[in-house]
Amino acid sequence: MKMKGRSVITYNVYAPTNVICMLRPRRQNGQSIIEEGFNIEPSVPFSEYTDLYGNACQRFVLPNGQVTITTEVQAQVNPTKQIPSPVPGYILVGDLPDEVMYYILPSRYCQSDLQELSNLAFQIAGNFVPGYDQVEEIRKWIHQNIKYQYGVSDSTTTALDTARNRIGVCRDFTHLAISLCRALSIPARMTVGYLDKLQEMDLHAWFEVYIGGEWYTFDAVQEVTEGYRIEIAHGRDAADVAMITQFGNATLQSLHVEVNLLENEPVSQN
Amino acid sequence: MKMKGRSVITYNVYAPTNVICMLRPRRQNGQSIIEEGFNIEPSVPFSEYTDLYGNACQRFVLPNGQVTITTEVQAQVNPTKQIPSPVPGYILVGDLPDEVMYYILPSRYCQSDLQELSNLAFQIAGNFVPGYDQVEEIRKWIHQNIKYQYGVSDSTTTALDTARNRIGVCRDFTHLAISLCRALSIPARMTVGYLDKLQEMDLHAWFEVYIGGEWYTFDAVQEVTEGYRIEIAHGRDAADVAMITQFGNATLQSLHVEVNLLENEPVSQN
Amino acid sequence: MKMKGRSVITYNVYAPTNVICMLRPRRQNGQSIIEEGFNIEPSVPFSEYTDLYGNACQRFVLPNGQVTITTEVQAQVNPTKQIPSPVPGYILVGDLPDEVMYYILPSRYCQSDLQELSNLAFQIAGNFVPGYDQVEEIRKWIHQNIKYQYGVSDSTTTALDTARNRIGVCRDFTHLAISLCRALSIPARMTVGYLDKLQEMDLHAWFEVYIGGEWYTFDAVQEVTEGYRIEIAHGRDAADVAMITQFGNATLQSLHVEVNLLENEPVSQN
Amino acid sequence: MKMKGRSVITYNVYAPTNVICMLRPRRQNGQSIIEEGFNIEPSVPFSEYTDLYGNACQRFVLPNGQVTITTEVQAQVNPTKQIPSPVPGYILVGDLPDEVMYYILPSRYCQSDLQELSNLAFQIAGNFVPGYDQVEEIRKWIHQNIKYQYGVSDSTTTALDTARNRIGVCRDFTHLAISLCRALSIPARMTVGYLDKLQEMDLHAWFEVYIGGEWYTFDAVQEVTEGYRIEIAHGRDAADVAMITQFGNATLQSLHVEVNLLENEPVSQN
Repeated sequence: MKMKGRSVITYNVYAPTNVICMLRPRRQNGQSIIEEGFNIEPSVPFSEYTDLYGNACQRFVLPNGQVTITTEVQAQVNPTKQIPSPVPGYILVGDLPDEVMYYILPSRYCQSDLQELSNLAFQIAGNFVPGYDQVEEIRKWIHQNIKYQYGVSDSTTTALDTARNRIGVCRDFTHLAISLCRALSIPARMTVGYLDKLQEMDLHAWFEVYIGGEWYTFDAVQEVTEGYRIEIAHGRDAADVAMITQFGNATLQSLHVEVNLLENEPVSQN
Repeated sequence: MKMKGRSVITYNVYAPTNVICMLRPRRQNGQSIIEEGFNIEPSVPFSEYTDLYGNACQRFVLPNGQVTITTEVQAQVNPTKQIPSPVPGYILVGDLPDEVMYYILPSRYCQSDLQELSNLAFQIAGNFVPGYDQVEEIRKWIHQNIKYQYGVSDSTTTALDTARNRIGVCRDFTHLAISLCRALSIPARMTVGYLDKLQEMDLHAWFEVYIGGEWYTFDAVQEVTEGYRIEIAHGRDAADVAMITQFGNATLQSLHVEVNLLENEPVSQN
Repeated sequence: MKMKGRSVITYNVYAPTNVICMLRPRRQNGQSIIEEGFNIEPSVPFSEYTDLYGNACQRFVLPNGQVTITTEVQAQVNPTKQIPSPVPGYILVGDLPDEVMYYILPSRYCQSDLQELSNLAFQIAGNFVPGYDQVEEIRKWIHQNIKYQYGVSDSTTTALDTARNRIGVCRDFTHLAISLCRALSIPARMTVGYLDKLQEMDLHAWFEVYIGGEWYTFDAVQEVTEGYRIEIAHGRDAADVAMITQFGNATLQSLHVEVNLLENEPVSQN
Repeated sequence: MKMKGRSVITYNVYAPTNVICMLRPRRQNGQSIIEEGFNIEPSVPFSEYTDLYGNACQRFVLPNGQVTITTEVQAQVNPTKQIPSPVPGYILVGDLPDEVMYYILPSRYCQSDLQELSNLAFQIAGNFVPGYDQVEEIRKWIHQNIKYQYGVSDSTTTALDTARNRIGVCRDFTHLAISLCRALSIPARMTVGYLDKLQEMDLHAWFEVYIGGEWYTFDAVQEVTEGYRIEIAHGRDAADVAMITQFGNATLQSLHVEVNLLENEPVSQN
């Protein structure tokens, strides 16, 4: 399926402000990036690097005044990877590949080492078969028990906060899901990007878990995990994959996102 | 100076337990690792990998019963790097090398994005010259205001906890120092290893900050930062550089550490 | 300066052929990639990875028949970096950064370990000041003594061949220059990309050397090294940065390249 | 099996000479490094880094006079990995993992892109089943047709030279084997280390190929591939894994190697 994502971000800048952006798509297996653009208005030079997780990062200085950052991407993507039957099982920690080990450790917003989160994980999923069944129970529990609402959480809200307050947005749903999976020694990471099925057009966050020897996509915001996605970045939590990290005095004025599927029918992919 | 470190860790294991160890020395500039050993009793095979920060990690399964892990290292090391005069200054975020950027972001135990820690950083160091002077103010403030005491903090204690409770061990002193530096946009990381000047023989933790275009060592536990050190690992905080991360049912019974200088006089190093 | 590059490559494919492409621009400091596209006609899915040198690689299968690969890039670029005064000097091998060490070793097409090439290097540049002066002597010597001609060298031609036959294209000029620099223990690498100053529109190859603590651009094809460039890839030699590496039965039918400067005047850059 | 390797290298140094050594063991899955040492006499400081292939590299300056470098390692190792039945098959280039792709490209001493080597590969193995059978045919052909003799090849000898001269040492056997495998699009790399079965005690070189989804060990010097091995380094060819690369005026005076198995019976390994 051909899919297009576009985001327009406007800042009011009161003093030149250094930023790191993660707004360009990941270059990886499973999504063919056919076209993409990254424009800053007014025009300023930017440099790029690839971070430890393979994400593309853009560094630049926001100049004074109103600044607009527009990113566009057009990609050939697959639908969300199907869960095979029988469902993927739990991988023993000793059998995890080295490069997956980072994703069972606690991180800034996913304090999976806390007893309170560990207890919650066992309460929700302790009686289910380790692996897919546990993850899906966690996902469903969050979908049913956490209220989706803008404006009650912020950039410092953690999984523990969300477990207690039971309210938040996709970022918070995802942090809680990741923490509960890690508490069960299931590697879990945060992915941000475009999803075509989203009601309100926005950049979205979901989680991936390593079960049965592969990474699978789960989305606690959706009734069932589905849709076409373009991945922008993934990492341990929002500290790793922040859309924009700023160092200075600038205010986000607006974020406008568009997502479109460009074909009616999926084409064959190998 | 030739320096020797040795640690003996004993576990009581009640069920086979997967672990990741970081107990072997870093291989890097500034410390010449002449000899080292890593023994597990009873003997079990282990595999090794190098993590994202360049640390050596050992993976294996602790078998049932009492298990002893002994590591030894003998290295040629320099004394703690001197602060040059004039002192190293603040590097603008826009001028930081890409590979340093990870160390100004918040992490599991260093919540530098919290207003409370940011306020404390500005209160302590806001009136000092950005760079070395600010870092040294933070280091001294922690040394003078945080009480060093075993047994009051644990593996989930964060910099925010320490800022409030004003008590802890080297790990806690270090997390707080790192958080306050990052709140001032100064890159800071945690280093663990052997220090010859330590009163009670133990593995030690300190912090490094990136000022004036280089990493410098600071130690909030010491009256002044000094001594010979062998670095084992460095990372964003204790989640990255845990001596042992375990997945299962094992109890640390004892940790015994020895550190010795093997020569009376430093030899010339280039 | 805003600069645009575009390449259209047509293949006749007689059996499905696996390829690795390096046709998309590097994401790095010094060039801001504003827009770019990568299209295969007929459309096939492709995956991407970043290689050991930080280059973007595209992997896919060329289907039977005529296949056209079109890449486009629009970037904000600086002119070729000026040589400062005093000129950058030779860096002692012991003082080279670790990540530069790969570029003083011999490689597939740059056999800097051969006595014949070493002798040539000393004959050309042995009496000049180590560093910039030696490199510029080598560059000028190649420009003056190697005849630029299409069709006499091929993809297996080495620096030794070119030193003997004294004829070739940009790839051959560059391989010889790299080999002679490395024979003098000066790190040198191959860069491919777009150059606005080229007479015949083509993808171009030049070399970079590490002197005075930085990488500088040199071009043995030009009278003097100058112009605006968009870098696609760099590595040890053409084995690392081949535009297309194919595994099977396909014939390159045509390569069409366009390079345009989009503004008349350079704008200020930081 | 516990295994011990030791090498003592003596140099006569006429002017301070920068070197890069690869003499310490790889830290990886399948070999547990229990003890190891690296001593330079007279003592000089050295720094270490990990190269692009994960090998440990030591950098230092050989001082004037006679210098002795002694390395020792004691490891728990498995016997050479058995070939399973049915034998591992050829992996289509399109299905190779990204990180394996480097090993089908030509390199300094393995010019697999040359028609002459490609012809030889097809002549030897063209009629055999792709994968294990082809590799084993190549290995046996080299064992039977290349004469093992010291002193006729040197550090610049390539696979093409060996294919023509049919004489050489383990380094040359290995380069030829790698080149012929790559000519058949089978990823192949060079490994150096200790082998217990070697007649004359020396550091040894062999090759590994990626078939059936894994790396397997092959040794063209042996009648059949067998024995216990400690891996020091692996890479594309001897340019990547040179025991010592020197930049200056020093003469290798002697190399003395000892390899011992420390137990009579293999112990169980998982």
